[in-house]
Amino acid sequence: MTSANASKFGKAWILTVGNELLIGRVINTNASWLAKKLSFLGLTVQRIIAVPDTVDDIAEELNRGIERAHVIITTGGLGPTYDDMTLEGVAKAVGRPLEVHEYALEMVKQFYQARGLELTPERVKMARLPRGSIPLPNPVGAAPGMWLEYNDSIIISLPGVPREMESMFESHVEARIRDLYPSISVIECGILVKGVPESTLAPDINRLARRYKNVYIKSHPKGHETQKPILEIKVMVSSSDRRKALEEAGRVLGEVESIAESLGGEVGKKSCV
Amino acid sequence: MTSANASKFGKAWILTVGNELLIGRVINTNASWLAKKLSFLGLTVQRIIAVPDTVDDIAEELNRGIERAHVIITTGGLGPTYDDMTLEGVAKAVGRPLEVHEYALEMVKQFYQARGLELTPERVKMARLPRGSIPLPNPVGAAPGMWLEYNDSIIISLPGVPREMESMFESHVEARIRDLYPSISVIECGILVKGVPESTLAPDINRLARRYKNVYIKSHPKGHETQKPILEIKVMVSSSDRRKALEEAGRVLGEVESIAESLGGEVGKKSCV
Repeated sequence: MTSANASKFGKAWILTVGNELLIGRVINTNASWLAKKLSFLGLTVQRIIAVPDTVDDIAEELNRGIERAHVIITTGGLGPTYDDMTLEGVAKAVGRPLEVHEYALEMVKQFYQARGLELTPERVKMARLPRGSIPLPNPVGAAPGMWLEYNDSIIISLPGVPREMESMFESHVEARIRDLYPSISVIECGILVKGVPESTLAPDINRLARRYKNVYIKSHPKGHETQKPILEIKVMVSSSDRRKALEEAGRVLGEVESIAESLGGEVGKKSCV
Repeated sequence: MTSANASKFGKAWILTVGNELLIGRVINTNASWLAKKLSFLGLTVQRIIAVPDTVDDIAEELNRGIERAHVIITTGGLGPTYDDMTLEGVAKAVGRPLEVHEYALEMVKQFYQARGLELTPERVKMARLPRGSIPLPNPVGAAPGMWLEYNDSIIISLPGVPREMESMFESHVEARIRDLYPSISVIECGILVKGVPESTLAPDINRLARRYKNVYIKSHPKGHETQKPILEIKVMVSSSDRRKALEEAGRVLGEVESIAESLGGEVGKKSCV
């Protein structure tokens, strides 16, 4: 990565493609699944964007991502139908032509041959990748994914069907990203606080957040704000030293615990991931 | 709406605010719930964007939305804690100051008074709205929402807790949007096709989609692509004439049915919403 683009380091965007997301027919579980994976790999996800199935919308958001993020993952739009146009969007964003990729075609061919089916134009389409891409095998379905390095960013295109997306990510993407961010540990710890309304605890949480700048602190109301307040307090710390991250998380939650108890709250056991 | 901004008409953006979305701790059900509601009100949702809890990120995406959409809905970031900064983001985007709104303050005051709690600065913060806003009562929680008209767009800020968001939308937003788009009916119909792989049906679906430009057609693989293919074919039609929309949806699905049967598929019963 050139120094001009060092500001991208550690940043990720997720671009989920599909009208079915924008009409609310599908809940975007792919986005949250990927966001969690990337966060635990040490990346900071800065945008999750759902765009319609049009080349221009896909290319527009990809170009914004390429300006600002090291890793950009797309989901959806790799299939055989007319509205699967993610790779065309990638090609437009990076200014490269789509070409049938020999290995990708082999993947598609083997998938259908094994099932006694022909290689129709719609199936060949799934093997057309932007020039310079590496195809990613699909352990579950027909459409290959894509890994493309461009302008100090990595664009990774995964299928939209969750089990295909998850399987491709775990088999062919996760380890490669871990190699790029080898030394980062991410710790997340949480406690439950009963009996203190969120707005009563808020000033103290605010103070802690200002004091521990590198710790992400968040309170999630689980019960009713005043009648039966239950708050989940979570802290997340990234560090190259796992032990230090755990200590820091423990220190912050310890302070939250003392404060909550002084306000008459009941505090549950700490758990960490 | 001025003619210069007529291109915004019928377009909506959804901006969901919160780091918890970007680390994958929370699945963005608010986005799909709102997307479905807006689609059935006749709006086309063109972006769903999750942004971190920072004023600049919120304002950046709001400004893009204001350029291009008539209705922009935000969720989350209205609460009492330091990282609830949606309204600050709105204020920045529209270049107006945040001010304690008399009615909003009354809502917050009543909520806490009824529970024997004081009006702390954190609670008053929830009543600070960008100048010119209309506060929206929160039927379930403490934080009011906001309705703000600016530059021929409407910015609506709703809470992040789903039951508060849904309740506020249904009580105070839905009817107002329906008044803006009174005459549009949206019909969605679907059938299940068993025994035809998606890529086999794809060329015909592509042809239908090109022929019926105002009908949104989509196939969703439900089973395995080749071993046990089950496809859900859905069509969505918007029209000022509900009967015509139903007819058009039926015509397209009728064609899909004939094609699927000619390919040896088994077609289930049509259902419409």
